[in-house]
Amino acid sequence: MKILILGGDGYLGWPTAMRLSARGHEVAVADNYLRRKLCKEEDTAPLFEVPDLYERVRLWESLSGHKVRVFIGDLTQWDFMEEVFKSFSPEGIVHYAEQPSAPYSMLHRRAAIINTIQNNLLVTSNLIYAVKEFCPETHIVKIGTMGEYGTPNIDIEEGWLDVEYKGRKQRFLYPRQAGSLYHTTKIMDTDLLWFYVRTWGLRVTDLMQGPVYGLVTEETGEDELLMPFFNYDELFGTVLNRFVVQAVIGYPLTVYGGGGQIRGYLNIKDTLNCVRLSLENPAKQGELRIFNQFVETFSVNELAEKVQRVGQILGLKVEIKSIENPRVEAEEHYYNPSHTGLIELGLKPHLLTDEVLSQMIETVIKYKENINKDAIFRGVKWK
Amino acid sequence: MKILILGGDGYLGWPTAMRLSARGHEVAVADNYLRRKLCKEEDTAPLFEVPDLYERVRLWESLSGHKVRVFIGDLTQWDFMEEVFKSFSPEGIVHYAEQPSAPYSMLHRRAAIINTIQNNLLVTSNLIYAVKEFCPETHIVKIGTMGEYGTPNIDIEEGWLDVEYKGRKQRFLYPRQAGSLYHTTKIMDTDLLWFYVRTWGLRVTDLMQGPVYGLVTEETGEDELLMPFFNYDELFGTVLNRFVVQAVIGYPLTVYGGGGQIRGYLNIKDTLNCVRLSLENPAKQGELRIFNQFVETFSVNELAEKVQRVGQILGLKVEIKSIENPRVEAEEHYYNPSHTGLIELGLKPHLLTDEVLSQMIETVIKYKENINKDAIFRGVKWK
Repeated sequence: MKILILGGDGYLGWPTAMRLSARGHEVAVADNYLRRKLCKEEDTAPLFEVPDLYERVRLWESLSGHKVRVFIGDLTQWDFMEEVFKSFSPEGIVHYAEQPSAPYSMLHRRAAIINTIQNNLLVTSNLIYAVKEFCPETHIVKIGTMGEYGTPNIDIEEGWLDVEYKGRKQRFLYPRQAGSLYHTTKIMDTDLLWFYVRTWGLRVTDLMQGPVYGLVTEETGEDELLMPFFNYDELFGTVLNRFVVQAVIGYPLTVYGGGGQIRGYLNIKDTLNCVRLSLENPAKQGELRIFNQFVETFSVNELAEKVQRVGQILGLKVEIKSIENPRVEAEEHYYNPSHTGLIELGLKPHLLTDEVLSQMIETVIKYKENINKDAIFRGVKWK
Repeated sequence: MKILILGGDGYLGWPTAMRLSARGHEVAVADNYLRRKLCKEEDTAPLFEVPDLYERVRLWESLSGHKVRVFIGDLTQWDFMEEVFKSFSPEGIVHYAEQPSAPYSMLHRRAAIINTIQNNLLVTSNLIYAVKEFCPETHIVKIGTMGEYGTPNIDIEEGWLDVEYKGRKQRFLYPRQAGSLYHTTKIMDTDLLWFYVRTWGLRVTDLMQGPVYGLVTEETGEDELLMPFFNYDELFGTVLNRFVVQAVIGYPLTVYGGGGQIRGYLNIKDTLNCVRLSLENPAKQGELRIFNQFVETFSVNELAEKVQRVGQILGLKVEIKSIENPRVEAEEHYYNPSHTGLIELGLKPHLLTDEVLSQMIETVIKYKENINKDAIFRGVKWK
């Protein structure tokens, strides 16, 4: 299948490109290096330098024999979106091309309005128009987030909610209520996609993903030149990745407030398989198919305790420190999200075992000298 | 009260400015004349030329003694938003500054992405940041639309829905599902405002307004120079305004499809009072207060029959013609929306009586020579 990955340079984009090309798909990636640019602006370098897309593609081809096409440009500009679609006619699209950080979206006005709202919505809008114009039967796999749902006091179903009210019934898109501006732009993406699915009959899979962890996939092996763009800072690092780096350098694990915040997590290897399974089993024309993409739920305290315990087995001294919560969020809440759709498609989950965590810590230890302690904590306040 | 009206040149903006200044409020208006520009581009002139804001303000002052301040510029640009807030510190804000047409938003890519999504969301985002930075206690009155709800098969409550599910309870923002891109950007506005109300404690009233009709208010009298920017075309004219103009020139009333589409309507005089009542009785800090702003529901067929009957009494020959529905919408549906909040605040509704309709037709007859038949119907298709 010809697959176009928008946002092909990011933490998930590049590993997805390798995974899909290793599976025999013909892959192209598009990116404007926004994540790299923002990391430079905010002085949050990744754990190790990663080559640019052209270099990684050359390296990957020399190792695997698989070619990946590269388009560098800004997908918020229609001209570039059009150019990509005219020279590569995708049969499947993965849309990762968004500013992906909740704390970054709360940093300041420019981060919020230009780099998050404008960036994310223009890419999604241009994509919708490109698919309509050039390939209306092409399946879009969009990365949403479990954060769109927030933490309601009732069960979270997969995308939809059947409401019975005063004796009548209606199925709604599950009501969404997010905890950051970034997550709110993902809700707005969902609003847009759902409108054009109903109106133009687009075919879309929206993956409500939980926080991802890990830096090694089947294709990276131990080769850091192929590993993902791995941030460990508060802005761009997801919580477990950050805790592991903190453990390695003896920086107390920063738990926000009570630490009772529960989320659904998954290994980056599972992300790649969820995306692949969605592409290989596409949504129907005129269908918005929604999957909740995570495999296990943990509270922040449970994650911190796991990292502490496994770190101590490896001889690290790991402290846990609760700090005043800079976010506006419930620290104790009901959380019971469903997640059966991807399992039914064939996902074989990787669980967060002690062995997995231990391998992750050992990989990070190799890069200990690169870690910039000052980048870890910024205290970006929601208010 | 010092009140800033964003979008002060539009169909509702200018009449609101007069209404509020006549009530003794200190009023400023801001606009970039986007509506006028789009009407020129699409060749959809209003029923009569209206003077620009500076001229109308001079005329209004000479007649009433009330001063209104004018800011001309583009609110999607932060610099201009900042300039307005620095030189006029509002205690209340009315936010009308959006591309307001559903069919226009479905016209082509530029109309959709640049003039609707980008325009509407950047104004709302800049407004949110301006209020946070310059006047966090200022009450925002935002014009939303009943169209955000769509036509669900259960009762539409005012903004919120109490869901009971598997023995647990949660109050959600009422799930929204709109019928055009324009209406979808209003949902996205609601997503944004609700996030920042929860996070920053903004105070916001969101008015879910139905289609408005009428061209005379308490302040316009019969003076066309003070009357609203009145479109009668398919792009920018609301349905009843359009039907009245069609009746006057013997153009068959264009009913889309079966004509069973039911909506909640209101007279422009009621819009002005709803906005005024909301401002004079503000939401609390940290509250998103939502009112459904309409006074009566009619199907399109009922509206057409009313116009036909009253038109015939006035000696007009009025035909009704059903055409293939260019929109994607239910033509027969359940519709039971609540609307008690504004009545409780003191709204005294103006109903669509034969007398009201007859006066409206007679006013339009005065401008019969101005009507451009070719502008009325464009057949903008949703698909």
